[in-house]
Amino acid sequence: MDFAAWMATVQARTETALGRLLPPATQAPQRLHAAMRYAVLGGGKRIRPLLCHAAGEIFNASPAALDIPACAAELIHAYSLVHDDLPCMDDDVLRRGKPACHIEYDEATALLAGDALQTLAFETLAEHGGSARMIAQLALAAGSRGMAGGQAIDLAAVGQSPCVEELEFMHIHKTGALIRAAILLGAEAGSADDRALFQLSHFAGRIGLLFQVVDDILDAEMSTATLGKTAGKDAARNKPTYVTLLGLAEARRKAAELRDEAKAALIPLGNAARRLTELTDYIVDRKF
Amino acid sequence: MDFAAWMATVQARTETALGRLLPPATQAPQRLHAAMRYAVLGGGKRIRPLLCHAAGEIFNASPAALDIPACAAELIHAYSLVHDDLPCMDDDVLRRGKPACHIEYDEATALLAGDALQTLAFETLAEHGGSARMIAQLALAAGSRGMAGGQAIDLAAVGQSPCVEELEFMHIHKTGALIRAAILLGAEAGSADDRALFQLSHFAGRIGLLFQVVDDILDAEMSTATLGKTAGKDAARNKPTYVTLLGLAEARRKAAELRDEAKAALIPLGNAARRLTELTDYIVDRKF
Repeated sequence: MDFAAWMATVQARTETALGRLLPPATQAPQRLHAAMRYAVLGGGKRIRPLLCHAAGEIFNASPAALDIPACAAELIHAYSLVHDDLPCMDDDVLRRGKPACHIEYDEATALLAGDALQTLAFETLAEHGGSARMIAQLALAAGSRGMAGGQAIDLAAVGQSPCVEELEFMHIHKTGALIRAAILLGAEAGSADDRALFQLSHFAGRIGLLFQVVDDILDAEMSTATLGKTAGKDAARNKPTYVTLLGLAEARRKAAELRDEAKAALIPLGNAARRLTELTDYIVDRKF
Repeated sequence: MDFAAWMATVQARTETALGRLLPPATQAPQRLHAAMRYAVLGGGKRIRPLLCHAAGEIFNASPAALDIPACAAELIHAYSLVHDDLPCMDDDVLRRGKPACHIEYDEATALLAGDALQTLAFETLAEHGGSARMIAQLALAAGSRGMAGGQAIDLAAVGQSPCVEELEFMHIHKTGALIRAAILLGAEAGSADDRALFQLSHFAGRIGLLFQVVDDILDAEMSTATLGKTAGKDAARNKPTYVTLLGLAEARRKAAELRDEAKAALIPLGNAARRLTELTDYIVDRKF
């Protein structure tokens, strides 16, 4: 199977699995369940599920077993986007080319939908064979010492002038922690040993930052229509980005460097890791 | 030990355990961690931890083992209060006699603090010996088919005229589900068998509703100063309560009936369940 076909397969099975895990919109409370489905289904690149499946395949985890951590990570990601778009946070009206959840529904419903999506992530792992260790790992990645903490650091940085190291510290928490969890949970669903996990953990650190650097470059270069979310938003809100701190050329150079480092970390894992290598290129070369 | 001393002991150990589980306010991101601690510590009746300990004691669970599910339930409760008080929800400025979290800090920090408190609840169970089954139970109680769903039903009911059955359906989700989980998780931390769990589950259903009926009576009768939260709020916002639907006298009659039913459900459990009996009286006779 070539990479494009593999990616389409994983994306399709993730969509199906998410559709089954989410309560039906016909079940009470209907509006809440409809908002949860709206926020999760029919959009998104599914980067975390792709990384989870790619990492799990190295260690012979079955696609069905990988759907569980993949969906759990994606549900955490989806909840964070819903809350991030709220007026008291980034105040954005557009997400994945559609009105943000609080625009399509209302603020209170979006708040509750985000809350319930987070709960569903843990319910998913706990009800479908995830171990307490996996649940603890996801929680650590999502909470105040991970993603939510990164968002708090991000908020505090508005109008400030952090250095690149401080920006990196923020991103390691805000996006890196969950990406890392998606990769490691996938590997642990298979037969990964501690040495392989250590290697993957190094890869995860690089790919997390790479993802963010590319995001900042795209945000500076692309139009809102192409991105499906408001472009140029960070600069407009006076939020530091790799592009505002380093300039476009230097940000591109940094992305190239991180790509090389990420791929180098995969070499000891051999040909079995080729989907992760392909995903690395995809993340850099994507246009939205 | 008399009931008052027992209650003080459980409340004190809960406070200590929560203080340890919460990240220190000196750890980055400091403001987020300070807001999380503010929202959880130094206030609250700790009804859920009390019920959890009382249920666990029947089946010889150790207090140390009970601290974990007790704190997990209380963290879920605390997160729900922080989000509930936000302007887009109940828009309340006062909680536990202090400024609400978003008043003391800011809306974005309160949103993230609530998010991270929910995560911490699952992290607590997963990291300290909770089983996947216990985690799934707590998630089901907290999510869109439990507490968060109840809040969505509550929102939809503003300005509506539900019947008592509809009000009950809302409360069974909004407060009942988590109270029930606190009781059952406590029992499961001990040696409770399925028959005992069935009996406790019946008790939990009654005590959950009883708690809410008494809350509505207190809200109608007491002052803001006594309650430590804004009194008369539900009536002012045109939210249906047991008092607005039934009148004060009939609400009191209903509370008495639920108290009798709750206590009757405990009889098969014998004298070991006496803390739950005492808690039932405490919940009815409390003045705030």
